[in-house]
Parts: sequence; structure tokens; C-alpha cells
Amino acid sequence: MEIEKILSGIIKKNENKILLIVMDGVGGLPHPETGLTELESAKKPNLDKLAKSGMCGLSIPVLPGITPGSGPAHISLFGYDPIQHQIGRGVLEVCGIGMEMNRDDIAIRGNFATIDENHIVTDRRAGRIPTDENKKIVQKIQENIKEIKNIQIIVQTVKEHRLAILLRGKGLSPFVSENDPQKEGLKIKKIVPLNDDAIFTAEVLNEFVDRVEKILKGMDTKAKTILLRGFSKIPDIDSFEKRYLLKPVCIASYPMYKGLAKIVGMDVIQGLDTIDDEISALHKLYDEYDFFYLHYKKTDSAGEDGDFNKKISAIEEFDEKISKIMHLKFDVICVTGDHSTPCVLKGHSWHPVPLVIVSKNIMPDDVETFTERACSRGLLGTIPAKDIMYILLASAMKFEKFGA
Amino acid sequence: MEIEKILSGIIKKNENKILLIVMDGVGGLPHPETGLTELESAKKPNLDKLAKSGMCGLSIPVLPGITPGSGPAHISLFGYDPIQHQIGRGVLEVCGIGMEMNRDDIAIRGNFATIDENHIVTDRRAGRIPTDENKKIVQKIQENIKEIKNIQIIVQTVKEHRLAILLRGKGLSPFVSENDPQKEGLKIKKIVPLNDDAIFTAEVLNEFVDRVEKILKGMDTKAKTILLRGFSKIPDIDSFEKRYLLKPVCIASYPMYKGLAKIVGMDVIQGLDTIDDEISALHKLYDEYDFFYLHYKKTDSAGEDGDFNKKISAIEEFDEKISKIMHLKFDVICVTGDHSTPCVLKGHSWHPVPLVIVSKNIMPDDVETFTERACSRGLLGTIPAKDIMYILLASAMKFEKFGA
Repeated sequence: MEIEKILSGIIKKNENKILLIVMDGVGGLPHPETGLTELESAKKPNLDKLAKSGMCGLSIPVLPGITPGSGPAHISLFGYDPIQHQIGRGVLEVCGIGMEMNRDDIAIRGNFATIDENHIVTDRRAGRIPTDENKKIVQKIQENIKEIKNIQIIVQTVKEHRLAILLRGKGLSPFVSENDPQKEGLKIKKIVPLNDDAIFTAEVLNEFVDRVEKILKGMDTKAKTILLRGFSKIPDIDSFEKRYLLKPVCIASYPMYKGLAKIVGMDVIQGLDTIDDEISALHKLYDEYDFFYLHYKKTDSAGEDGDFNKKISAIEEFDEKISKIMHLKFDVICVTGDHSTPCVLKGHSWHPVPLVIVSKNIMPDDVETFTERACSRGLLGTIPAKDIMYILLASAMKFEKFGA
Repeated sequence: MEIEKILSGIIKKNENKILLIVMDGVGGLPHPETGLTELESAKKPNLDKLAKSGMCGLSIPVLPGITPGSGPAHISLFGYDPIQHQIGRGVLEVCGIGMEMNRDDIAIRGNFATIDENHIVTDRRAGRIPTDENKKIVQKIQENIKEIKNIQIIVQTVKEHRLAILLRGKGLSPFVSENDPQKEGLKIKKIVPLNDDAIFTAEVLNEFVDRVEKILKGMDTKAKTILLRGFSKIPDIDSFEKRYLLKPVCIASYPMYKGLAKIVGMDVIQGLDTIDDEISALHKLYDEYDFFYLHYKKTDSAGEDGDFNKKISAIEEFDEKISKIMHLKFDVICVTGDHSTPCVLKGHSWHPVPLVIVSKNIMPDDVETFTERACSRGLLGTIPAKDIMYILLASAMKFEKFGA
């Protein structure tokens, strides 16, 4: 990113506080019958008030046409280039279930799979065993395998046939091949190092797979081996403190978002289950931080379900909560989403996301309501999500002049 | 381009069909008397219907302020960076007259010129000899020179003093100097290799010029030599099939556009003379392809002529034809131009080009008519032309999610 070439020369610390509210998957598409989107259908007087007083626009999460996962979508919102800073699948899996991960750990996605006596993979998902069965197997593996060659092994259930694995210790590298043959009817592969630094890691992993298979042999389950992929470390990325001179905190209830916030060095508050918990935490932590990332999940979940009314309710519920934030003095408030999750598509999408920035230092525009189409006529225009952070920092007067 | 770093990881094949309609040079500027552009003056109910149901915007062909030729303008529309993938002048000349070109051929633009007995160039255009005279000379050259040092030589008239030359064979390189002294009164230059790989090519070309001069000596014409420039090969560019997993077809009547489509690996339909031929072809080929590039030339020609009424008629003629397309089921339809050709400028221009995308997966906006000013208020905003292709692919659901 161009701005990275000058950022350290212009960023300055001050007392001003920034609140970034991410309504996950808030953007939508019109309902076929009404022609109105979820946001256009919801009653949301508080969000509309923000739109009226603020500067609106749309944001493109990654690139035009590209549908992002939560990882790249948040990396963008945090002001980093999501293509330059790709987060490995293993790391995202580990983030998603809230495992604590250190900077040198190797994170891995695992699948339980079925093999026959000749090591031919007959079911890459072991019949999608129930999550409870997965938990029992994982417990047995963890009891029997605590370390291999001085490398600590940590395993945890994700769901059904999926699990996450962390390797912790010295001399590890993520540059090893998968053992997944990708197709059923083929033999499970050996894990091989992709460069010389990874020879040791491949040895550890092959021994791990062997020992897992021995444990599974004695159990009444379709899970007979473990397929490993997505080997990755936490990306080497400047923290918010180093990059922006901010003291940031993450207020979120879902593990994935806490994990992503941790990657950029935010303090992460644990034990928040509901949006009310989150808003209480915001009040409690107000004095301690100058950057607050507040995450609201329900809009995305309803979109993924394709449940239009549920998404409207999620928007309306959150709108009501916003009134409880407004008396706190933030110098800059931004409300947006990490991506769109239109109910009609039942999943994430590439569509630009509505965005409002409220601050005494911005230029208010004519937008009167917080919707996709209204925000498209806002003064911000349609901008890459990775630019938003810099407009927030600027509105909080955290930049010196560039050049004389 | 950033997207090239992730494209192969997210592109997927499906059954959905995309139709890209290029109304060449469709963008215009206001008539001095009416204050209305060509599009604003035309009656075009079908284009307006598309604008009403679709998502509109403007596209910048190459970069703000840059007027493109047809080459870079189309390369952009096809989703490639037009600055990174520049197409040589020789290749464009050859495309423009519909010569068949292979991947290792060297294409060259030639001018007949007049020289005196001391090889001083006295007229760089040989008095702009008539095209018929050019054809006679070219025929004689082709009869007498079929190959040099095992390199096949193919010559073809362009018009007036201009011709195109192809070298076909082993060991050729485009890295040779021109022999054009650029000014009259100077001696014609020897062609010299610009690196060691081009020594052989320079020898072939110098012998070619010598032999052409000998042939021309005996003829009653002002053409006494041949100036050569624009040496180029087909750019090494991923095909649509490789890059987008598409099966694309070009439906165009002019050689230039067929040549450009061939460069990106489209199947090119020959023998189409009119827009009616093109629309019949579209119907006939509907089942066989999943990407259709349909080119309409008359809007550009009228703009080049500076004939405002003719351009209005061209728009209205095409508008009527659109009704014959609409009952075909395309999942995504895009209508735009490759660039603007305002009648008041009598040529290509840098002005952003109106754009509409119709698909059930887009967000319709409030734009009600397909004009420059109306589309500028559309939800797509003003975007680089090279991004359009990715929005079309996204709307056709041809992308997997990027990241998790």
C-alpha cells in the first residue's frame, strides 16, 4: 500500500478516541417481492441519525467483484492490504474456535477421514461424524499425544469431522505439503518438507499422523486417520500500536473476530456473550483505550441463513443498542460492515458495504438513511475498505501534514 | 494487477452466461447548440430499460485523462491491465486488416516512401499513393519475395502508402531498430539488432528492404523503398479460458476487434458484415459458449466523422436491435463502450464511458436512462474499465470466497 511508505512519518498520538462498529455482513440485496434490501426494510432511527449527521459512502472489502471471508475483510477494515497480508487457513481455523496462538506456533486444519487397510482414503470426511464423537476422539488423542520430538501438540475439536492442531516449539516451519490426496480412492500421502527448514516439521507431522492412526484403530469410529492442511503461522504484521500509535481493544463475542483482532495486536476482552455484554464492556473500558473495535455478529448469521426477517430484526436490535453508546464521547465513530451477506445469496458477497463516519471534522452530506443505495450517494463515494482506517485517523487528527 | 495474485485461487466454472456488448466509442459530449450529448439526444427505449433494471456507472478506459486506441481500450474491457499488456503497433496493424497471425510471428507496419539515388528520403509517404497502386506493388513484392533465409515473408496492403508485413519462421526477434529517419532530407537507416538475439532478424529485414527497392526500381510509382517500424509479437497474455475458465466467442464484423479478441484466446466468428449478422450469430452460438463479446462499430465511425445525427442514428439503430437479444437468457449482460468518441472532437477521447450491468445478482440503482450524466449517478460509480470484467464474473457467480 502506498500509504505505508509515509505512515510512520506522519502518524501522531493524541487523546482522541475512535469507535469502529462492524455490523458483520450488514450489506444486502433487494427482496424479490418488495425490491427493498434488509437495511431498506428495517426501522433503524439511530443508524439513520448517524447517516444524517455523518459522511456516508460504500466500501469495497477487497477488490471489485471479490467476495471475502471474515479474515481478509477485517484485515482491510484494520487498514492493511488484504492481498499482501493473507492469513493462513490454519490460523483462521484456530482463531475461529478461540484457541490461544503464539507468534511461532504452526496452526493446522485437520479432517478426520476413513482409510482402508492399504491406506486408501475411502471417505475424506469420515462420514461427517457427530461433533460429540469428534470431541471424544480429540480428548483421547490429546491424552496420548502431548508432544513429539520436544514439540508440544495441541488439538481441539472444530465440528463434525473437523479439528484444529497447533504445533508449539523450536525449529518449526509451515512449508510442508498436505497429506490429503484430495480424492477418495487414492492413498493418503506422506507429508514432505517444501524446503530444508521444514524437514523437522515434516518428521513431527508424519509421526503425529502415525500415532493418531494407532489410537483410532482401537476405537469404534469411522475416523481412521487425519488429513492435514492449511499449515500457517500468524502473519508478520505491524501491530496497531506500532503502526498507528493506538491503544486498541476488541469487543466481540465470537472467537474468529477476537482472533483477528489479536493478530493486529489488539487487547481482546474475553467472556462477552451478547451485544449487551459488549456495550457494558465499552462503557467500562472507555477510559483505558483510544481505539475500540466493536463487532456485531447477528446480521451476518441471519444473512447466511437467508432469513430476511431475522436480518431485519438483527439490524433493528442493534439500532436500539446504539442509543446506549451515543452519550459516550467518541471523537470519531464509524459504522460499517466487513462485507455484505445478502439474504438472497445466503452467504458473503462482493457487494459494496454501506459506511458512515461521524466526527466534527468530516464534511456532512445529504444522505438521510443508512442503506446501500442512500450511502452510494454519500460524499465518501465508493472506496476500498483498506482506506477507511486512514480517514478515521485523519478525522481524529492523528496525522501530521505530509510534506511542507 | 492486484487481482491477478488471487484470481486462479478463486475462479470457478459454472453454466452461467455473460454477454458483453461494446458499442464502440458510444460516449460523447454535448452538442454546442442543444447542450445534449449524442446519447442524451437519441431515442433508445431498450437501452433505457436496461439502465432502469440494472446497475449503472461510468468507466475509465485506461487512466484519467488518457485517450486510448482500440487496443488498450479492449484489453481493459477484457480485464487485463492495458499498461502492463501493451500490444505492439505492428500487431495492431495486422489485426486491423484481419491477417492471420501466429504466436511467434513478427508483425511490422510498413510505409512506402520515396528516396533519391543517394538513399535520401524525399517523401516518407510516397505522395500517399492510391490504395490500388499499393495493392499492385504489394502483389509484385509478394510474387518475388516469398522467403528470405528460410523466413516466410507475408505482405498485405493497408491503404494509401501503408502496408503490413509478417515474418514467420524460427529464430526471430522484434528487438530491431526502425529504418525510418523520421525526417525527410535524411538518409534511410540500416536496421540494426537491439540485442544479440535479433542479429538474424535484422539481416532478414535489411535484405528484404534491398530486394523491395530493386523491385520498385522497375515500376512506375513514387514508392521507391519501404520504411519499417512497430516490430512486435503477440503479447504473452493468459487466454480467457486459462484466466477465467470461460469459453468465449467474439461476434464482430471489423478485423481489428476480431484480432484483439483472438489475442485473448476467443473463438472468432468470420463472415459477419452487419449488426443483423452479428445478432443471428449470437442466437446460433448461444448454446456453445458462456462468454459472448458483441461489438457494434457504427457509433465510433459516426463520432470519428463528427456527424452528430449519424451517431444518434447509430445509437437508435442498435437500440432497436437490442430487443432481438433480450429474450435470450443471459445471466449477466453488460452494455458499455471501449472509449468515448465525441462528435465535437471527431475522434477517440478520455471521457468516462457509460456502463450498465443487468443481472439478478446486482443492486439496481435509480438511473433511468443510459447516458453519460445519468450513469455517473449510478451505484457502480466511476470505475477503471479493467475492473468491469470482475464484476461480471462475480455477478455470474464465478468466484469462490477469498479467504475464510
